[in-house]
Amino acid sequence: MKKALRRSTGAPAARAASATLIIAGGRGTRFWPESRAGRPKPLFAIDGKTSLLAGTIARMRGLIPPARIFVVVSADQRRPFRKALRGILPAGNLIVEPDGRGTAVAIAYGAAKIAERLGGETALAVMPADHHVAPADGFRATIAEAFDLARAHDALVVVGVAPTGAETGYGYQQIGPAVGNGYKVARFVEKPAPAAARRMVKSGRYLWNAGIFVMRARVLEAELRRHAPALAAAMERFGAIGARSLPAFYRSLDFDSFDRVVVEKSRNVIGVRARFRWFDVGSWQGLWDALRADTTANVLSGNAIALGSSGVLARAGERLMVLIGVSDLVAVDAGDAILIARMSASQEIRRVTEELSRRGLNKYL
Amino acid sequence: MKKALRRSTGAPAARAASATLIIAGGRGTRFWPESRAGRPKPLFAIDGKTSLLAGTIARMRGLIPPARIFVVVSADQRRPFRKALRGILPAGNLIVEPDGRGTAVAIAYGAAKIAERLGGETALAVMPADHHVAPADGFRATIAEAFDLARAHDALVVVGVAPTGAETGYGYQQIGPAVGNGYKVARFVEKPAPAAARRMVKSGRYLWNAGIFVMRARVLEAELRRHAPALAAAMERFGAIGARSLPAFYRSLDFDSFDRVVVEKSRNVIGVRARFRWFDVGSWQGLWDALRADTTANVLSGNAIALGSSGVLARAGERLMVLIGVSDLVAVDAGDAILIARMSASQEIRRVTEELSRRGLNKYL
Repeated sequence: MKKALRRSTGAPAARAASATLIIAGGRGTRFWPESRAGRPKPLFAIDGKTSLLAGTIARMRGLIPPARIFVVVSADQRRPFRKALRGILPAGNLIVEPDGRGTAVAIAYGAAKIAERLGGETALAVMPADHHVAPADGFRATIAEAFDLARAHDALVVVGVAPTGAETGYGYQQIGPAVGNGYKVARFVEKPAPAAARRMVKSGRYLWNAGIFVMRARVLEAELRRHAPALAAAMERFGAIGARSLPAFYRSLDFDSFDRVVVEKSRNVIGVRARFRWFDVGSWQGLWDALRADTTANVLSGNAIALGSSGVLARAGERLMVLIGVSDLVAVDAGDAILIARMSASQEIRRVTEELSRRGLNKYL
Repeated sequence: MKKALRRSTGAPAARAASATLIIAGGRGTRFWPESRAGRPKPLFAIDGKTSLLAGTIARMRGLIPPARIFVVVSADQRRPFRKALRGILPAGNLIVEPDGRGTAVAIAYGAAKIAERLGGETALAVMPADHHVAPADGFRATIAEAFDLARAHDALVVVGVAPTGAETGYGYQQIGPAVGNGYKVARFVEKPAPAAARRMVKSGRYLWNAGIFVMRARVLEAELRRHAPALAAAMERFGAIGARSLPAFYRSLDFDSFDRVVVEKSRNVIGVRARFRWFDVGSWQGLWDALRADTTANVLSGNAIALGSSGVLARAGERLMVLIGVSDLVAVDAGDAILIARMSASQEIRRVTEELSRRGLNKYL
């Protein structure tokens, strides 16, 4: 691990031709009240301090400088992101889509904007901002390896995580023949049934798909030309089209996710093994499962005190939050709104946003 | 009931010689975080709107005018009470003890101050401010009857409440021979053992002691002279002593509660049956027991929403509080502090204040 890290972070030539594109769209109502329309999930601070997005940027430090880290968001979420990125990234590195049209369009648009500035040979590490990743040096070593593989093989490189459970909400990669330090991805399986998930994990031949893609901008364009020619054509037009015409043009784009449109179809996909722990921060219960030491532990942040309590995820802010004699509970103080939920009911959080909507309490949505 | 009410409230002569003395001392940490050092229990608003004290004053309307309603508090709690009583009572009707020295001293001091202004023939209704009472017209009818009995018999009149359960935290009165509309109190039993409480309630010959005393000021003085001559002497001195000497004199007074010092010893006690529902607001669980419709009900106030929840007492403020899938829980947002407790753990609330004290978080105490 140390060898890979040293080799990659130490090579100025490799760094000069690399950039990061962080896809920061999506609403994430599952973390209500902390994430909602005006507070997107990438701005959610798991530890109560550093947002997932700021953590993602900080993790790249030493591998990719802030000047070459870009964040793509949709126009309706521009404001909170602009504010959150102040002092962290150059203002011009926030790429604003006129509309959210899925990850294939977001990546094509972001890559076009980056290629305009840095050229088509630039290798891009495309990643979401709402995953939990640690440790940071293992992450950098993995991405450096992915950059090397992407350049050496003109390939689309994905990252595979050794599964720690038979998760049914994740995508899986089947490990094929070795390619350098990596492996050919034989196939992708998206959100399997429980039995299939158990079989795959047990076989040892499948990894979780971390949703990270590394490739040269011109390789992306070539893949799009092959599997989604209309999107490749759009990508070429993005530079020429005027600001006034862009929104209508953008709304006319109708593509599925990048996984569906490109990755699952491409014959040129190489996997690299993650040298980090990873999980998709999907629900309050998922967060607690990931952070807790054991089932009786409490996970507290902010100004929280728990007495005679167990199995509690408590996220206090400045205000004091005292829990006494409770268990199996998530409690979140998000300033203007407080959530108190049975841990397993935190999966039903959509009921809350539906109820708020029904009552016309839109300011909390 | 109507007859008694009409007779009493309609008699100007009776009203002119009557006053109310509300004893508003005590800290009441059992309602943390809503009641604490700087927010005494009488200022606690059960319904999130009207404080117990304001409710007590409002209940007297039509029987005793605000000009003759007095509130006695200790000096360290003067500030929140002064603020709370603004616009409700004349400023001079807040009687400030230099120090909290128990109810016997508070009543003697308050009665002395009132007698200075209104004379020794004034009949006083002395009552705490932290009890839940309803309906108000039944309360007024009862107090009017107590005034009549106190005057007609030169007696100390107490109020007895038909018990709804074998409470061990309350005091009981044994019903003796009839005296007018009332009864001679044969004896008092304070905080009985569970078996004794059950026996008394079953016998039908005992009532809960509501902690309300009605008597002429000069009868009070006579009773004190008989049972606590040192306090009677102090009561006489209160008028003459200078403001500078009062605190030290006050601190030298060492007496038990008014119940112990006077009521339980007096041979001149008449009881009157309460024409109202009553409970001592003693704990969050007690409050929930009293307010709930049944064990599965939720009692919500403020900006609270409960989904798939039962047996919840939720007191939200301005901030939205959403509960989902929880049961047997009390949740209180008191502005700078939030309490989330299993209902039965709300009896252990002292653990919270001890823990806060241990951590030096005195601003929440």
